[in-house]
Amino acid sequence: MYSLLTYGEILLRYTPQNGTRFLNTTGFDCYVGGAELNVAAGVSQLGLKTGIITKIPTNAIGMMARHKVLSCKVSDEYIYPDYNADARIGSYFYEKGSSPRKPEVVYDRNNSSFLKLQSQELPEEIYNNTKCFHTSGINPALGRNTSEQTMLMLKTFKEHGALVSFDVNFRGNLWTGEAAKEYIEKILPYVDIFFCTEDTAKLTFLKTGKLETIMKEFAEEYGISYICTSRRIVHSTINHSFTSLLYNAGTDTYYEEKPYENINVTDRIGSGDAYVAGTLYGILNNLDMQQVVSYGNAMGVIKNTITGDIAEITKDEIDALISSHHSGNNAEMKR
Amino acid sequence: MYSLLTYGEILLRYTPQNGTRFLNTTGFDCYVGGAELNVAAGVSQLGLKTGIITKIPTNAIGMMARHKVLSCKVSDEYIYPDYNADARIGSYFYEKGSSPRKPEVVYDRNNSSFLKLQSQELPEEIYNNTKCFHTSGINPALGRNTSEQTMLMLKTFKEHGALVSFDVNFRGNLWTGEAAKEYIEKILPYVDIFFCTEDTAKLTFLKTGKLETIMKEFAEEYGISYICTSRRIVHSTINHSFTSLLYNAGTDTYYEEKPYENINVTDRIGSGDAYVAGTLYGILNNLDMQQVVSYGNAMGVIKNTITGDIAEITKDEIDALISSHHSGNNAEMKR
Amino acid sequence: MYSLLTYGEILLRYTPQNGTRFLNTTGFDCYVGGAELNVAAGVSQLGLKTGIITKIPTNAIGMMARHKVLSCKVSDEYIYPDYNADARIGSYFYEKGSSPRKPEVVYDRNNSSFLKLQSQELPEEIYNNTKCFHTSGINPALGRNTSEQTMLMLKTFKEHGALVSFDVNFRGNLWTGEAAKEYIEKILPYVDIFFCTEDTAKLTFLKTGKLETIMKEFAEEYGISYICTSRRIVHSTINHSFTSLLYNAGTDTYYEEKPYENINVTDRIGSGDAYVAGTLYGILNNLDMQQVVSYGNAMGVIKNTITGDIAEITKDEIDALISSHHSGNNAEMKR
Amino acid sequence: MYSLLTYGEILLRYTPQNGTRFLNTTGFDCYVGGAELNVAAGVSQLGLKTGIITKIPTNAIGMMARHKVLSCKVSDEYIYPDYNADARIGSYFYEKGSSPRKPEVVYDRNNSSFLKLQSQELPEEIYNNTKCFHTSGINPALGRNTSEQTMLMLKTFKEHGALVSFDVNFRGNLWTGEAAKEYIEKILPYVDIFFCTEDTAKLTFLKTGKLETIMKEFAEEYGISYICTSRRIVHSTINHSFTSLLYNAGTDTYYEEKPYENINVTDRIGSGDAYVAGTLYGILNNLDMQQVVSYGNAMGVIKNTITGDIAEITKDEIDALISSHHSGNNAEMKR
Amino acid sequence: MYSLLTYGEILLRYTPQNGTRFLNTTGFDCYVGGAELNVAAGVSQLGLKTGIITKIPTNAIGMMARHKVLSCKVSDEYIYPDYNADARIGSYFYEKGSSPRKPEVVYDRNNSSFLKLQSQELPEEIYNNTKCFHTSGINPALGRNTSEQTMLMLKTFKEHGALVSFDVNFRGNLWTGEAAKEYIEKILPYVDIFFCTEDTAKLTFLKTGKLETIMKEFAEEYGISYICTSRRIVHSTINHSFTSLLYNAGTDTYYEEKPYENINVTDRIGSGDAYVAGTLYGILNNLDMQQVVSYGNAMGVIKNTITGDIAEITKDEIDALISSHHSGNNAEMKR
Amino acid sequence: MYSLLTYGEILLRYTPQNGTRFLNTTGFDCYVGGAELNVAAGVSQLGLKTGIITKIPTNAIGMMARHKVLSCKVSDEYIYPDYNADARIGSYFYEKGSSPRKPEVVYDRNNSSFLKLQSQELPEEIYNNTKCFHTSGINPALGRNTSEQTMLMLKTFKEHGALVSFDVNFRGNLWTGEAAKEYIEKILPYVDIFFCTEDTAKLTFLKTGKLETIMKEFAEEYGISYICTSRRIVHSTINHSFTSLLYNAGTDTYYEEKPYENINVTDRIGSGDAYVAGTLYGILNNLDMQQVVSYGNAMGVIKNTITGDIAEITKDEIDALISSHHSGNNAEMKR
Repeated sequence: MYSLLTYGEILLRYTPQNGTRFLNTTGFDCYVGGAELNVAAGVSQLGLKTGIITKIPTNAIGMMARHKVLSCKVSDEYIYPDYNADARIGSYFYEKGSSPRKPEVVYDRNNSSFLKLQSQELPEEIYNNTKCFHTSGINPALGRNTSEQTMLMLKTFKEHGALVSFDVNFRGNLWTGEAAKEYIEKILPYVDIFFCTEDTAKLTFLKTGKLETIMKEFAEEYGISYICTSRRIVHSTINHSFTSLLYNAGTDTYYEEKPYENINVTDRIGSGDAYVAGTLYGILNNLDMQQVVSYGNAMGVIKNTITGDIAEITKDEIDALISSHHSGNNAEMKR
Repeated sequence: MYSLLTYGEILLRYTPQNGTRFLNTTGFDCYVGGAELNVAAGVSQLGLKTGIITKIPTNAIGMMARHKVLSCKVSDEYIYPDYNADARIGSYFYEKGSSPRKPEVVYDRNNSSFLKLQSQELPEEIYNNTKCFHTSGINPALGRNTSEQTMLMLKTFKEHGALVSFDVNFRGNLWTGEAAKEYIEKILPYVDIFFCTEDTAKLTFLKTGKLETIMKEFAEEYGISYICTSRRIVHSTINHSFTSLLYNAGTDTYYEEKPYENINVTDRIGSGDAYVAGTLYGILNNLDMQQVVSYGNAMGVIKNTITGDIAEITKDEIDALISSHHSGNNAEMKR
Repeated sequence: MYSLLTYGEILLRYTPQNGTRFLNTTGFDCYVGGAELNVAAGVSQLGLKTGIITKIPTNAIGMMARHKVLSCKVSDEYIYPDYNADARIGSYFYEKGSSPRKPEVVYDRNNSSFLKLQSQELPEEIYNNTKCFHTSGINPALGRNTSEQTMLMLKTFKEHGALVSFDVNFRGNLWTGEAAKEYIEKILPYVDIFFCTEDTAKLTFLKTGKLETIMKEFAEEYGISYICTSRRIVHSTINHSFTSLLYNAGTDTYYEEKPYENINVTDRIGSGDAYVAGTLYGILNNLDMQQVVSYGNAMGVIKNTITGDIAEITKDEIDALISSHHSGNNAEMKR
Repeated sequence: MYSLLTYGEILLRYTPQNGTRFLNTTGFDCYVGGAELNVAAGVSQLGLKTGIITKIPTNAIGMMARHKVLSCKVSDEYIYPDYNADARIGSYFYEKGSSPRKPEVVYDRNNSSFLKLQSQELPEEIYNNTKCFHTSGINPALGRNTSEQTMLMLKTFKEHGALVSFDVNFRGNLWTGEAAKEYIEKILPYVDIFFCTEDTAKLTFLKTGKLETIMKEFAEEYGISYICTSRRIVHSTINHSFTSLLYNAGTDTYYEEKPYENINVTDRIGSGDAYVAGTLYGILNNLDMQQVVSYGNAMGVIKNTITGDIAEITKDEIDALISSHHSGNNAEMKR
Repeated sequence: MYSLLTYGEILLRYTPQNGTRFLNTTGFDCYVGGAELNVAAGVSQLGLKTGIITKIPTNAIGMMARHKVLSCKVSDEYIYPDYNADARIGSYFYEKGSSPRKPEVVYDRNNSSFLKLQSQELPEEIYNNTKCFHTSGINPALGRNTSEQTMLMLKTFKEHGALVSFDVNFRGNLWTGEAAKEYIEKILPYVDIFFCTEDTAKLTFLKTGKLETIMKEFAEEYGISYICTSRRIVHSTINHSFTSLLYNAGTDTYYEEKPYENINVTDRIGSGDAYVAGTLYGILNNLDMQQVVSYGNAMGVIKNTITGDIAEITKDEIDALISSHHSGNNAEMKR
Repeated sequence: MYSLLTYGEILLRYTPQNGTRFLNTTGFDCYVGGAELNVAAGVSQLGLKTGIITKIPTNAIGMMARHKVLSCKVSDEYIYPDYNADARIGSYFYEKGSSPRKPEVVYDRNNSSFLKLQSQELPEEIYNNTKCFHTSGINPALGRNTSEQTMLMLKTFKEHGALVSFDVNFRGNLWTGEAAKEYIEKILPYVDIFFCTEDTAKLTFLKTGKLETIMKEFAEEYGISYICTSRRIVHSTINHSFTSLLYNAGTDTYYEEKPYENINVTDRIGSGDAYVAGTLYGILNNLDMQQVVSYGNAMGVIKNTITGDIAEITKDEIDALISSHHSGNNAEMKR
């Protein structure tokens, strides 16, 4: 029995090494990631059993990705093999920024094995096999089939009693705001936990007014239980602040904590997913809402300081981070 | 005025670093290559003006490839930009072997920008702008469009008086022997310089008998001026022997030289292309045939000892290599 | 239900980087290994379910080792955490050789968490939970407690009907030949599958005569079903030959195959364990004995060409290696 | 026809790797640079045709520098080969700083091939072959011959109608302020575009008063068309601010824009040259003066964030940087 | 004749490379350090003759540490060899922090060769052979033997007329505050130069009141000549401020200088030891007290910007740093 | 009192990293070496006290070289500082070969600080301070001053009773055979131990006949005590054989031992110097002549397998190598 199953694409990320740029590099660090994998891996490392529903090639490059998934304690039970000669794993290139030069992303994720996964390939029992199902707005943005599968899975997991979690994860390079709005509004009735930033709520869903009001509107309009909004301020490529707001519709209560300031950002990719992971961990572990917020924030924050797409952490250090954030302890280190 | 223009795909190659394998790597060395680029770069570095006809993305990854092309003194005049959002540069993964473990190639070259290049994009004057046009059997193997463009360019360059050079470069992963035979037999009447290994001649073109006879048959049947066959013996992943046979149909003469033995192979990729480059350099520079063979062999051999797809060399060292091969001088080094 | 459980220490290995030596290095590549982990990982990657019985620290260094175990598809169900402040993971330093300079091993494995593991910590059901139990002579060599635990586990698994496999793995730096002989002779009555080199049989067990005779003697004296002997010839640090002899006592038959010659050795560590893994895979998968030998040899051979303690492989490539060894196919690569 | 030819030395730069210092390093990253090469490379990458007049050895180290020049689209037509046995390429060692520890430069540029270049080696037509000629005060500081050649080239290019650009580039380690003042005042009558910092104007040329006044004085005294002054504030080794002031004598107008603040400096070397490149690009491309300032600043700023002597950029990203600086858009990245 | 002998453990430090963490690293940078070695090395590089009293294995790993000691001009005359099979060098793992993620230290220093050193192994003449003896509170925290040896050496050096220097260096992971207080109060009567932070004075020695008062109390109570207190403010993992206060009991005077602000911290380990080194250098070199403070601060500050445990510096750069701190000169660099 | 003082230049060596060549490298491994330093370092590590007489810059690059010298236990007492602004350390570039591509050396050693050293700078007592003085034919090849200093030092050390050792070390890139012959014949009367290869004896000194005869001739003609000739066979860049012949004139006896075959060469530079070091160690340590040969050969051989100019070794491993060479023990490793 899984605590969490996610559905999404596993991506390889290529980052130029040793201070080089795309323009002059001769080598790339390679990381395994993908929004929904990042969420599953975060929850797994915090202690719950997770898996990912996806498809990757059977070649050695696909195997490398599979090994990484396993090393983060995410099950590969539902990673389907693509045996075709044209099987490929989606990838993207990422060049780090240095203010005012921004990070740059070049996608190379078309025609990947993931795009071909059909929910018919899934065994019936999968729908009774998890406490929570999570996916994101990246899937419908990738094309017709993933759009349909997302809808189908959301509905079926919901029908079978799983909690359904959805992160908008709006990507302007993949689809338009209008398309996103139209699609996501159709699925929101099935969603129990909804992750959406203030910007996306306003620019994509055309909401107006205070964030608190917007959150409540979403909850009421679609019957959503939890609305979660991360709040990041980018001071420079190496200095962010981070906190979040959580709305519990059941008790009509808002939860937040003081922001983490002066985060020394080394790799921002996946910090939104880590925030989702911390939040889901808290909810699935039945923590009180204030603790849920703490886990969400701590995971989101710490990911910014870790190289790679996945927040590779120990639960002990997350607990220590939360505790020192609350106590204001700024001892340099323990030795 | 170019001495040589080639038509072909520019590829990125990813090789696991620091003794890792595909299965456990966390980083890749990245090289720029491609059979026809390798040929142009080899000829250029030997001193003649060359260019490549191809198409790559305008994004920074494409720019990186362009910079590498330029650094090898190959002109980018006919490298067409692909501005589309889905533009991509073909790539492949290459894991080094270690006997008896063989090297492994995983292609990821579908849907690349190169496949979309249309000969209509080429300016009229290009056909009068080069002494020699070279391409290979990889292009027709990649799909319908490149198959047609290859044929079209071959014919048009021929009509305008350029020497036409063609390397079979048979790739079993890209097309069948039958398809290759059918296609290539159609273009051979336009070919002046033909590169084909003995194995390919026998297995793909179903030739039988002694190599010398086969070469003469090709020449007579299709009116080809020069038939060039590299001869490699693989003792282990790190030890090859190499020589070649060249048939000059005009004088009905065969040329060869004693094999290079005990080659300490560090990267075998592109050594066939380097052999082509050395041979074309000799022919285009009007060297005597025995010297043509020497340049072909020396370039093919030295590439095996150089990391990366392109034989990055100086003409001085090729001359020194030829000279020490002939003299049997095995002084360790000059200092 | 496991196909294989092994009992042994997980070690970190430190190897000087970038051509440095112990004497002048400023960095180490770090690998996770250990004889019994290597065996479990080999069998797992060939497709059977395996786990390892061991103890490691709960600190982040221990977590790193755990992640590596997981990435090779070995279960961490029976990896017990050592929460003590003085918990440590055993380690060793390994410097590559270059003939005639030999590789050098410096152990730093005393006082490790593993040494403290008590079989009482194991759940009762573990003994009914596996088809085969494997361990090696390294454990009794490490000290009194591991010596006792080894005996206890061997007996208990045997009593519960598991196949028992044992590799002598004689280490002159850890105990004497006499101690090894005395101890191992006591446990051999419980052993079904016995791995022992000819040298060890002669120097440690004081056997004399032909290898075939020695093997049969072991089988008859202790009621062992399979005796397996790897045969390695070290031509230089980078060139070995490898084959093996297997004696099936049930049918009184010997199995072997022609040696792999001219192995381009890049990392010899763990190749004996990989040979054990291939052999156990074959036996546990009920392959015919000739195939068992083929898997044993192929795994042992390929490990020599792979950097790190564990043979990180795909079953596909092992099958291809066996097939090309038998067919004599020496095509360079497939592309 | 070139838009820009520069005259100056190509240097190799050695920077200790992996966080080491000069005192304990075992390896160096090696970059190709030189003030006038940096300018040519910057203008080239923005889209204009450039070349460099210089001399380097014909050995493989010289070839490596030549390849780098080519990769940045700078022509090597006027890079003269030094065939002498004692040919050498100038070099310098650079250790990064970390506040309050300052970066350190150790020169090793004496007796280089560049110092031997004679303007007689240049073909007559070179003087009619470019729209603009640029050089800097480093050349006269290097010795008698380069001092004379600088003067000669400046005059000859001027006579043939090229725009003449000159950057003071004062280096206290190479000559004294007095020598610089005396020499440069002799050449200023030939200069059309003059780059000089406020500090240098005051300390070396002994100007006093407001910067605007000083600029105008230079313009009036020597008939200079454009005076360009970069303005950098060093908050720490990793945090600078940057802007500039440009005086157009023809219209008696000053141009500037709001400073770039909080620049995350990773490599400050060559940012002054990049500023010159952006400015010359704007002027040679006939942009309006406000845009000239924008290109100068954006190039100078972005170089601080790029490792290596040359600002390896795409024009697209410079345009995007200018646009986001003006719009205040601080979105993290586009994806 | 030595200016300084220190007594303490030489440690290896392992830091994950290339932006990895303990959890996912595959390699470690390895540094040689240890509080008392760091002090000796700092003083040595400033120009005085130093040595260290310690014990390390005779294996190649021990030799590597010895080579590093020598390279920093510290004598190995009193580094005793441990020939035992279980000889080991103490080590620790260090993962860099990135605010708010703190650095992490994992010790693996139990059972090291150092712990076995007996003062009987020292030659009689050692006590007459140095101007100053320095050690720290780490030794008594490591166990009974080192606790006794520390006491013995302190007394004997004192009796023979050497200046005795002691740094509390409190490590909460090694012993309790109570144990530290009890032990150190016993040795303070033998101490001439005492290094203790304000925090330790208050939390461990239970002092209260102003720092100046506390310092004077120590001096008066135990007859200590110099009390030295470094003062660090940790703004973030990459930004510290640093200064210190020195009390000269002989003249009842306090010395300090304005803090270094905005230190760009790259490796904080060993900066306290470097401060001690600078201070001891000043005192042993008979500088005036204000200069003593300057050397202490400059050494402490610069170490924060240098990777590795030892402040590898030149005296020239320390002098330049002091001078530019006092003059406020913030020129970027000299070139 | 030194066992050995050598006189010679300390050089930096730059080798392209990560499989790159001069033509395309972006980084260099940097080693400290020089024929006479290599000899001193070899003897020092075998256990005798040595120093080097040389001059290097006082800048941080010079300091780095000094640190390396110290780390090999060579005294820096006679390393004279060059404070001049134009001080430089000689350097050379070295690209590894891969048969049939030969290694390539590019010198950049002109105008170095070493060339300026005057024997007047040496203290009088130096000549009474060593048992043996060693230098090589590289010094006179470098220019007039070093040629004179070499002669002066040889004579003065001889007069003061030191053993004088001289290695021809002929470098065709630095001087001609005629010049070498003329110069060296003048100094041979002062030489006690003479190192000269058979090739040099024949090509440079125009000797003919059997090697044994030539050696005896040298000894008789110039009163030399020991003539030492290394004998290397280069099978390929990675496979050499090595042995040597030693002639003891005092007893008119020749010594040799069976060659080391199949040496896996990773870095050939400095192996001749290591052979000299082993031989001098034996002679200075008064070993019997057969052992002298063994140390010479073992040192020469092992250097071929060690990266860098200096044979960084432990005496233990040299002893083990000699012992296993004589016993024919080819156990893989000890563990």
